[in-house]
Amino acid sequence: MTPLNFQSIIMTLQDFWARQGCLIWQPYYSQVGAGTMNPATALRVLGPEPWNVAYVEPSIRPDDGRYGENPNRMQMHYQFQVILKPDPGNPQEIYLQSLEALGIDPKEHDIRFVEDNWESPALGAWGLGWEVWLDGQEITQFTYFQQAGGVVLDPVSVELTYGLERIAIALQRVGSFRDIQWSPTLKDGDVNLQAEQEHSKYYFEIADVERLRRMYDLFEAEADACLAQKLVLPAHDYILKCSHTFNVLDTRGAIGVTERQALFGRMRDLSRRVAEAYLEQRQRLEYPWLKEEEPTGAPAARPVRLPAESGARQGLLPALGPAPLLVEIGTEELPAGDLESVLRQLRERVPALLSELRLEHGELRILGTPRRLVIHVEDLAAVQADLEQVIKGPPADRAFGPDGQPTPAALGFARSKGIDIADLQVREMDGGRYAAAVVHQSGRAARVVLGEALPGLIAGLRFDKTMRWNATNVAFSRPIRWLLAIVGEAADAETVFQVVPFEYAGLQSGNTTRGLRFIQPYEQAVGSPAEFFAFLEVQGILLDPEQRKQAIVAQVSSLAAQVGGRVKDDPALLAEVTNLIEAPTALRGTFSADHLKLPGEVLTSVMKKHQRYFPVYAAGQGADTEETLLPAFIAVRNGDEFGLDVVMDGNEHVIRARFADANYFVREDIKQPLEAYLDKLRTLIFQVKLGSMLDKSQRITALVDDMAQGMGLAEEEVHITHRAAQLCKADLGTQMVVEMTSLQGYMGRYYALRSGERPEVAQAIFEHYLPRFPGDAVPASRPGLLVGLADRLDTLCGLFAAGLAPSGNKDPFAQRRAALGLVQNLLAWELDFDLQPALSLAASHLPLQASPESRAAVLDFIVERLRNVLLEQGWHYDVVEAVLAVQGHNPAPASRAVKELSEWVQRPDWNSILPAYARCVRITRDLKERYPVDAADFVEPAEGELYSALLQAEAALAGFGSAAGFLLAFEPAIPAVNRFFDTVLVMAEDEGVRRNRLGLLQRIAALADGVADLSKLEGF
Amino acid sequence: MTPLNFQSIIMTLQDFWARQGCLIWQPYYSQVGAGTMNPATALRVLGPEPWNVAYVEPSIRPDDGRYGENPNRMQMHYQFQVILKPDPGNPQEIYLQSLEALGIDPKEHDIRFVEDNWESPALGAWGLGWEVWLDGQEITQFTYFQQAGGVVLDPVSVELTYGLERIAIALQRVGSFRDIQWSPTLKDGDVNLQAEQEHSKYYFEIADVERLRRMYDLFEAEADACLAQKLVLPAHDYILKCSHTFNVLDTRGAIGVTERQALFGRMRDLSRRVAEAYLEQRQRLEYPWLKEEEPTGAPAARPVRLPAESGARQGLLPALGPAPLLVEIGTEELPAGDLESVLRQLRERVPALLSELRLEHGELRILGTPRRLVIHVEDLAAVQADLEQVIKGPPADRAFGPDGQPTPAALGFARSKGIDIADLQVREMDGGRYAAAVVHQSGRAARVVLGEALPGLIAGLRFDKTMRWNATNVAFSRPIRWLLAIVGEAADAETVFQVVPFEYAGLQSGNTTRGLRFIQPYEQAVGSPAEFFAFLEVQGILLDPEQRKQAIVAQVSSLAAQVGGRVKDDPALLAEVTNLIEAPTALRGTFSADHLKLPGEVLTSVMKKHQRYFPVYAAGQGADTEETLLPAFIAVRNGDEFGLDVVMDGNEHVIRARFADANYFVREDIKQPLEAYLDKLRTLIFQVKLGSMLDKSQRITALVDDMAQGMGLAEEEVHITHRAAQLCKADLGTQMVVEMTSLQGYMGRYYALRSGERPEVAQAIFEHYLPRFPGDAVPASRPGLLVGLADRLDTLCGLFAAGLAPSGNKDPFAQRRAALGLVQNLLAWELDFDLQPALSLAASHLPLQASPESRAAVLDFIVERLRNVLLEQGWHYDVVEAVLAVQGHNPAPASRAVKELSEWVQRPDWNSILPAYARCVRITRDLKERYPVDAADFVEPAEGELYSALLQAEAALAGFGSAAGFLLAFEPAIPAVNRFFDTVLVMAEDEGVRRNRLGLLQRIAALADGVADLSKLEGF
Repeated sequence: MTPLNFQSIIMTLQDFWARQGCLIWQPYYSQVGAGTMNPATALRVLGPEPWNVAYVEPSIRPDDGRYGENPNRMQMHYQFQVILKPDPGNPQEIYLQSLEALGIDPKEHDIRFVEDNWESPALGAWGLGWEVWLDGQEITQFTYFQQAGGVVLDPVSVELTYGLERIAIALQRVGSFRDIQWSPTLKDGDVNLQAEQEHSKYYFEIADVERLRRMYDLFEAEADACLAQKLVLPAHDYILKCSHTFNVLDTRGAIGVTERQALFGRMRDLSRRVAEAYLEQRQRLEYPWLKEEEPTGAPAARPVRLPAESGARQGLLPALGPAPLLVEIGTEELPAGDLESVLRQLRERVPALLSELRLEHGELRILGTPRRLVIHVEDLAAVQADLEQVIKGPPADRAFGPDGQPTPAALGFARSKGIDIADLQVREMDGGRYAAAVVHQSGRAARVVLGEALPGLIAGLRFDKTMRWNATNVAFSRPIRWLLAIVGEAADAETVFQVVPFEYAGLQSGNTTRGLRFIQPYEQAVGSPAEFFAFLEVQGILLDPEQRKQAIVAQVSSLAAQVGGRVKDDPALLAEVTNLIEAPTALRGTFSADHLKLPGEVLTSVMKKHQRYFPVYAAGQGADTEETLLPAFIAVRNGDEFGLDVVMDGNEHVIRARFADANYFVREDIKQPLEAYLDKLRTLIFQVKLGSMLDKSQRITALVDDMAQGMGLAEEEVHITHRAAQLCKADLGTQMVVEMTSLQGYMGRYYALRSGERPEVAQAIFEHYLPRFPGDAVPASRPGLLVGLADRLDTLCGLFAAGLAPSGNKDPFAQRRAALGLVQNLLAWELDFDLQPALSLAASHLPLQASPESRAAVLDFIVERLRNVLLEQGWHYDVVEAVLAVQGHNPAPASRAVKELSEWVQRPDWNSILPAYARCVRITRDLKERYPVDAADFVEPAEGELYSALLQAEAALAGFGSAAGFLLAFEPAIPAVNRFFDTVLVMAEDEGVRRNRLGLLQRIAALADGVADLSKLEGF
Repeated sequence: MTPLNFQSIIMTLQDFWARQGCLIWQPYYSQVGAGTMNPATALRVLGPEPWNVAYVEPSIRPDDGRYGENPNRMQMHYQFQVILKPDPGNPQEIYLQSLEALGIDPKEHDIRFVEDNWESPALGAWGLGWEVWLDGQEITQFTYFQQAGGVVLDPVSVELTYGLERIAIALQRVGSFRDIQWSPTLKDGDVNLQAEQEHSKYYFEIADVERLRRMYDLFEAEADACLAQKLVLPAHDYILKCSHTFNVLDTRGAIGVTERQALFGRMRDLSRRVAEAYLEQRQRLEYPWLKEEEPTGAPAARPVRLPAESGARQGLLPALGPAPLLVEIGTEELPAGDLESVLRQLRERVPALLSELRLEHGELRILGTPRRLVIHVEDLAAVQADLEQVIKGPPADRAFGPDGQPTPAALGFARSKGIDIADLQVREMDGGRYAAAVVHQSGRAARVVLGEALPGLIAGLRFDKTMRWNATNVAFSRPIRWLLAIVGEAADAETVFQVVPFEYAGLQSGNTTRGLRFIQPYEQAVGSPAEFFAFLEVQGILLDPEQRKQAIVAQVSSLAAQVGGRVKDDPALLAEVTNLIEAPTALRGTFSADHLKLPGEVLTSVMKKHQRYFPVYAAGQGADTEETLLPAFIAVRNGDEFGLDVVMDGNEHVIRARFADANYFVREDIKQPLEAYLDKLRTLIFQVKLGSMLDKSQRITALVDDMAQGMGLAEEEVHITHRAAQLCKADLGTQMVVEMTSLQGYMGRYYALRSGERPEVAQAIFEHYLPRFPGDAVPASRPGLLVGLADRLDTLCGLFAAGLAPSGNKDPFAQRRAALGLVQNLLAWELDFDLQPALSLAASHLPLQASPESRAAVLDFIVERLRNVLLEQGWHYDVVEAVLAVQGHNPAPASRAVKELSEWVQRPDWNSILPAYARCVRITRDLKERYPVDAADFVEPAEGELYSALLQAEAALAGFGSAAGFLLAFEPAIPAVNRFFDTVLVMAEDEGVRRNRLGLLQRIAALADGVADLSKLEGF
């Protein structure tokens, strides 16, 4: 069958959604970036009224303009927008039916829901959801809309945004939007290519910045005038014009960071006012669409009707043996990170819960895929363990009269506890005698108590971001769509499984699970855990994440080996891929070797970050082959091998388009030398009070010039460092880095080399960002190290001075990472680097005053990171504290000291060493004054002996100056110390004698000066 | 069956047109007034490439905003736009099929194509076509697009613009756009009413004029910048923004006439540049859609292959008797005016043609409907009459030598005429002897010569406006779609009909006609004229316009009488209605009597001008009932009685909406007194050099003040006239008149009365426009007369002074009508009114200098109108000339003089009167000097006798002073005149005697001074 042409795709979708009860609407008469901005979405999602709508929206994104040269990326693309309000309960399934209506056989494709959260700062809107991938290509944005115009949405709307060109490319299996068959006779390129070329040129080259700014202001003023009259739609129209004008200005590169924030703020404010005015208006109209017969949300949560617990069962339970429990929480696709986190939580909480419920059990497994969280418990007790509780009542003498008769207090107490007055006992409790009720609580059926407890378990799961989706307003990572909970009742050698009855998020628990999408049967009632596991196994679903991971590793390695390649270890990528699928099948695709001309990091970044593909490297052993990419990638598909060639085709198309885009950026970027991009940093604001990124570059340069002197760099290296500092941020102005920020530094190095900079300079530009993440490399060159130190010092010092120290979870400038990187580099280089003077130098270049307090706060902040590093290395807390208290400002020696001190602390004789030193310190530490020692004033011989030992130790110390040095120096003096204290009364009555003795001990205590504060050690 | 809801209408049309090969396109992302402005029309119609497209277009027309209160009229309506390029040959039929696809059964409706020509000054575009009416409601604009962006289109595009709400209202039989079912659950009002209310308020009340002006300038500047780079689409986008901004400004009432013209000019210029740049671009791309296999136009005109005329037939024709000829030119619906004109032309030309072709014939009838022009000739000769031609050659003496032998000249002549040298004759011709060729031309078959002549006949038909539609680029009023031409060959008592073979406009003649639309069979081959007439008669088609007209009159009168009403004679309306239909069936509809509160002229104007309905008046006889409207109207439907109630419903809906609109305007207008609208005239420019309409009003007021003195008005009347002059143009500022200019004066009177002005003032405001058309009433009051005179004098004097005298066909300010009205009023009032001083007065108030030459030119222009009036009254040319030569500047007396003089000229003794007077004049008229007469110097008695007759005549003249007076005075002197000439030698030798005699004759000639220049008379 001929695949649908473009116009038929639209007509088919209109027809499909009309049949689903959607109103068919039209594109908006204004340039919008997305169908979301059409008032049919932006406004109609507000308020309680139901609204189901579908429409095409030609969407204009000026900065996506590629002069028609990119296969996928255009300044205008066609969206098909659907809003379902409230959530119909099965929007994913309806959506997938729509793809089938378009002729996409889901079984022969790889259709995936990949986490993607959506936010529009200009509209004050956000939502959670996914990109829907068809063979690696994003074809739809699927969002549960949580907020719009700054207003929390209730009910939540489901928003589907189809990318029509992407779908057409996939359906028609063509290589570019230009080749999409639009009608039987014309292609997309025929009717739209010229527009792409012309508008791209207009947006990037011609649009007059000054005039557009004036337009923006006029539009904004009109929006404001409309709002003053509560004219919702006219005001909204002008906000759209503002937004489009903003986008054009942005594409012209005319908007700095600060201005961007300011304009976003203004647009958001207008949007909020529009939203509020709209809501008022609908309220005034008494929500005309809110009809009695149309409920506004998902079915309201009905009161849970649990099967009546029969008196018989409650009283006298049959003798049931232990049996398995299976709970499955079925969800729409959870984000990879959330899946990992929720499984961890369940592994902690489920055992705790069972113990709390007094339910004995055997092996417990927590399993899960993006679509299901599974708890499987073997040999769960059928009933809780019994419980006897003794409850303290009034004191015995007030409970019973002298005649032994219960008082009214006792009667009341017994009644309140539901026991007979005759059963009231008198017990010794808490050192007195009290009336006590002994309440015996019989164990209840596991099925019942679990039914009561499971909602709380689910409700207690935490996620970074949660969403609501139906009228229960329950929050979860993604919607929960089914609940399976069955527990066995083992009797008479036969185990019968019953549903654990509960309700959550508007769902009733049952014994039905769902399989892999598109495999029939989709829903399946299961009679036992064994049936459940068998059903999923048949579909290839690997419930155990670890098993899934191993399967992926095996498949990926094997596919790489087939082309003489290998994949590198990449635990993060592997973990993510594992959490994106239920039934992994890896496949290998190729791309044109031409693309290998692009910087390797660009290719791998695109493959990994955008597509979650494994890059394939040449399999040789040498250092050369380490980084040699092959023109291939490995993707992991969710499902079996059916239609794998189609899936591969699709994935290859996507990567082709992605690489074409990267190629476009790089080609544009290298039209100018790297240095030329410094000018763009002028408009890129680092922080309002601290100026632009250009200002920052200049501060870094000044700072490395200062520091180079103190670090003994050769003149050659000083030059290199200086130049690298100048250019270190230049790549932030290039298109490739604007597009993929993670490539900063890489592109700087690449462009520096292409611009004729010295290789050492290029390398230092790259290295100054190192390390970028835990486990990353550190700079290998001193210029790289130095520029990185200066960058981080400037960042920290500046932001603290500007009052922007991180607080709580908020760390928008990633200062923790900056401080940590600084510490890690100093440690790695074992560099003796005193942070105090360095921070003063950094402060001296700032455009604002950094107070001593703020500098001290920076130092504390860095020391805190150092502390964490050391603790994570496993050093004992007291040792770390002892060292950091004294030399935290110079991390490398501090780290060495921790190591040395730790070795000493481990020694068997440590408890003779520390006390000896401690005695010296304790008696002197509160003295305000240092007393001179005069040997002539010694009274006892032990004094002289100690003095002599002191002098030896002081001499030894001069040669070391570290923790080990101190201890080695001090150790020989221990006998003298001990003798001194045994024989000499330090606090002699004669003041001169006393002072002389204290002075002697002060000198011994001072042996550890600059090394550690041993008083922080355990046992001091 | 449930009628389609709104969204299904759209989807059905998309589907329908996709199946017709149209590309389905989307609404534009900019506010546009019509789908035409979408580049898919505005640009794609340019150039030679084929293009078929269909799309929805939400169309924004700010000044149509009615706050959601009008049933049909909204600031935004939905269009469905279709472009067919080139013309597929049957676009009307395809269009009608699309209506059937929507569930409109054409048989039970009245579907009409009513002339409507389209022009967009801002886009430099125009086309000819129709409104398509469904039961009186315009549901589609159907246009053959002739020009766009100032570029002539080749091929022509067919443009269909469906008004979707109108169609939905008709289909769903609801009363207002608000009640249209949009989806199964929501109505149009649910989703669009708020927008109507808000945007109307924005456009009419809130939009900030100053800011919008600035936007306009910015948009224009961007368009210009784009054009400098040849960026067609971005430039077009900005023109659209200009256009929308202009419309908003206009709705705010911020655009004066001059500014409007200026802005239109600027937009048109930009559009032209966009069009040119687009054409260049397509040319540079080598017209990629212009494929070999897809011809760009209608089938190219193939060379006409006429049946070979057999030698036998040419030579020796069988003895065929005379037989009928039938020619039918089948067209798409001709405009009413064109139909009238073309029938007139055919009535003149066909007989002339037949005579030229030497074809004898019997009765000849020219018939026609909007869809067919029919020529029916009885007893047409089968062959032409023979012809003998004598062709003059060289003079005989040069053709033959002295020996009688032919010279080379003779041989050459004979050869060139195709005759044997022996057949050369010598004939007396033109007063000499010449060699002559006698060529005998045998008559050829009528069928053949008609086939050759008919294309020329059609091509020679003339229309005010013509259009092209296919690749032949033939021009006609509307497309010709079929040609029927059959002629009988009567032999052996049997007449066989043959096709007269010819080709025109890409069509081949045949014997097929078409019936009334929607009646089957639609096409029918006919074997004879009788079959043809029978076929049409069965369908109710009345071919004869006169018969059609009588049928309409009869039906309309009968329907009116049924409700106790009558219709007034309205020949123009009747003629138009007659020419709009083929098969008339009248129907009566009613409207709410509430609307009768509106001014009657508003109601009748709406009924007649917008809807071509006959208003129904109460049937009584008195003067009161004359103007009493009943709440009813009569429409005439094309077709039979099937579904007449549906048709009536539809028509009633339309008139309801129209009246609601009028009501809206009037209600708005009467919120202020009439005088308040004077302020609006400030921005309404009459003409740039002559200022605003307010300036004009003030000049008129000053001028009536001046003139009132000379005309002897009572003080009371002077006041009335002054006030009426002040207010005479005020209604031009009201919404009702802006909407329907033809109501000017009427509304002025109505609003003046409502504003408390005196009734005489109100009446004068109305009357100053009289007469507005030939046959219209003249002012009945002197104030009305006077204001009208002043208005017209100001117009003429001012425009001539500004160099804007009408020339050729150009008369944009309707100065001919002004001058004619002026003349007609003076004649009707028989007012002695000398135009010369009046023009001087008018000139004195102008803001610019009116030279004596320009004033003289105005006078000539007025006299020219007077001349036409008099000639049309039937007065003889020479009499009119004689009078106007002398007293044209005062029309009423001049007219009287013409009448009087004409009576004299009719007299039997006129040829004794005139010569007598003429003798006196002829002998003296060249004299430069006037000679005194001295009776003492008389020599002959006849001199004295004549002198005495002269003195009597002069004395008689003093009592008369008119043409009759002159003649009555002169007549008695005739014998004396005759005697004088018989006996006296005027030119005596003695100078004194001669001068005395000439002086005497000069005095006689002067008797006619100020009356007429009798030398202009025939026989002088």
